[in-house]
Amino acid sequence: MGKLEADFAIYRERMNERILEEDNRVIKRIYSVDSLAYAEGGELPKRTRELLGLVASLVLRCDDCVKYHLVESRKAGNGRKEIVEAMSIGLVVGGTIVIPHLRRAVEFLDDLESSA
Amino acid sequence: MGKLEADFAIYRERMNERILEEDNRVIKRIYSVDSLAYAEGGELPKRTRELLGLVASLVLRCDDCVKYHLVESRKAGNGRKEIVEAMSIGLVVGGTIVIPHLRRAVEFLDDLESSA
Amino acid sequence: MGKLEADFAIYRERMNERILEEDNRVIKRIYSVDSLAYAEGGELPKRTRELLGLVASLVLRCDDCVKYHLVESRKAGNGRKEIVEAMSIGLVVGGTIVIPHLRRAVEFLDDLESSA
Amino acid sequence: MGKLEADFAIYRERMNERILEEDNRVIKRIYSVDSLAYAEGGELPKRTRELLGLVASLVLRCDDCVKYHLVESRKAGNGRKEIVEAMSIGLVVGGTIVIPHLRRAVEFLDDLESSA
Amino acid sequence: MGKLEADFAIYRERMNERILEEDNRVIKRIYSVDSLAYAEGGELPKRTRELLGLVASLVLRCDDCVKYHLVESRKAGNGRKEIVEAMSIGLVVGGTIVIPHLRRAVEFLDDLESSA
Amino acid sequence: MGKLEADFAIYRERMNERILEEDNRVIKRIYSVDSLAYAEGGELPKRTRELLGLVASLVLRCDDCVKYHLVESRKAGNGRKEIVEAMSIGLVVGGTIVIPHLRRAVEFLDDLESSA
Repeated sequence: MGKLEADFAIYRERMNERILEEDNRVIKRIYSVDSLAYAEGGELPKRTRELLGLVASLVLRCDDCVKYHLVESRKAGNGRKEIVEAMSIGLVVGGTIVIPHLRRAVEFLDDLESSA
Repeated sequence: MGKLEADFAIYRERMNERILEEDNRVIKRIYSVDSLAYAEGGELPKRTRELLGLVASLVLRCDDCVKYHLVESRKAGNGRKEIVEAMSIGLVVGGTIVIPHLRRAVEFLDDLESSA
Repeated sequence: MGKLEADFAIYRERMNERILEEDNRVIKRIYSVDSLAYAEGGELPKRTRELLGLVASLVLRCDDCVKYHLVESRKAGNGRKEIVEAMSIGLVVGGTIVIPHLRRAVEFLDDLESSA
Repeated sequence: MGKLEADFAIYRERMNERILEEDNRVIKRIYSVDSLAYAEGGELPKRTRELLGLVASLVLRCDDCVKYHLVESRKAGNGRKEIVEAMSIGLVVGGTIVIPHLRRAVEFLDDLESSA
Repeated sequence: MGKLEADFAIYRERMNERILEEDNRVIKRIYSVDSLAYAEGGELPKRTRELLGLVASLVLRCDDCVKYHLVESRKAGNGRKEIVEAMSIGLVVGGTIVIPHLRRAVEFLDDLESSA
Repeated sequence: MGKLEADFAIYRERMNERILEEDNRVIKRIYSVDSLAYAEGGELPKRTRELLGLVASLVLRCDDCVKYHLVESRKAGNGRKEIVEAMSIGLVVGGTIVIPHLRRAVEFLDDLESSA
């Protein structure tokens, strides 16, 4: 695991635990439906659904969400060319305002690959 | 062609022409790269790229963009189940604020299918 | 029921039914958690939670969501002064871009009250 | 005055009056600082500040705000070429999601000019 | 005062001073109406208005604004359960894209409480 | 060159190179139209177009985009008073949610000037 990925994963895990300890039913259900949306099964292959989550995260400009879906998109079998092309759709739809997020996404992708 | 689709297509066509008549180089190039992003060829199948454009449009809550990608997603070979599942990803990522746009999307989809 | 409220309620009901007929598990669960979030019970009074939903909808500039929470905010016992003050917070946070949505909100509120 | 401009101006005026009748101090002050921001005087010419308001409205995808600043941009002395170029900046920054709003902006601009 | 809170407060204070030294009338008035919106008095209790500001900040995904309203929400008398429930409304309305901001909010809340 | 500016410029340069090495045609064209939009020539002076890019970036709350246009706005001949006034328009349109981004913008502007 690369450094950027490790930092992200550790913080994410720790804070998700804290959030679920709040024992708020609404929050728990949102976490649960989030898992369901990307689970195996479904009409579209998981690899496609991960790219959908990636592009949605990119146009909404959420760096941590992008990181998460970059990890999952690779695990689901998408290659770099496919991931970059998916992000290019996000860039066209979302405009140049997306570029700084694309920089951080590509940096994270490099980190993921270098540690693979 | 259904009524909703026809209204949308006519207005869209007419105003795109007017916009391109402005003869602004920046605008023309954005239109051109928009076509390129969804053209045949590429790493991902067109049917996947259309779903990416659909979900990006849905989370950014652009009804006209959603309509456009609904038309194109169907043309590219996506069935209703796949389209709805793609939109369900947008709903999870974007939250209940997406629901009114999902209503209009499903209404438009019904219109598309009834006229097919 | 006023004309604006009736038009909104009928369309909303009809399309929500269509959406749930898709039988997509993710979508159904989002609808279900949406109900839970504003249900009776909870730490904060329902009247407060409805105002939270109203302001969130206003700053995200979703007219239909605003309409829905205006109806529910009144049902939950909020008076006009309280509703308008809640919206004024949304205006400050969200800026003048919120004004057109505030216009439609006040028009809808007038419609709600005139038919009460 | 063209039809689109007249419809917009009448509704805007009527609802602004209703909003100010709420007698909410926060809302009144936001209206007042909005006027101040585009008033004569200042470091930048009014014609430039109107274009700034126009582009901000376009990338935030607020059709009514765009309409208002189109009217004011012309009054302040901007020609069509300048207005369209300003909007092209908004299109690049905001991406293709801006296109449907650009269509309505150009339609409104045509209406403004045809009635001049 | 916890470390996260102190870092935030010091930077915020220092830069607000710099901003007000610019002596721009529009900026000053926005700062002033911002104070007014959350001041004592008003139709809704301050504790409710702080939660409205918190949820608006959360759905607009502004971490610094969330931090500020977390501090003020507690000062105004809201307990952790109420604050978390308010944020759960923001999560439902804004979707999973809000989760990374919720993580940072809960981390900041822990810091606030540990130093109380 | 100040420290903030240097850090930003180095990272930006390095990652833009990485992005262009992906050899994705859509991404390359977006970069190219981005350059065109702010190039010399055009209907509006470059100094005005840079302010348009700055305000669009500010209301969309993209810190890195704001930094970039602050550098370019100064190079194109805008003074601090003009830049701050342009940002005040962004603050009015975008609301108090813009304030944290304005803090970072003014900090960056100070850094730019101190190193000039």
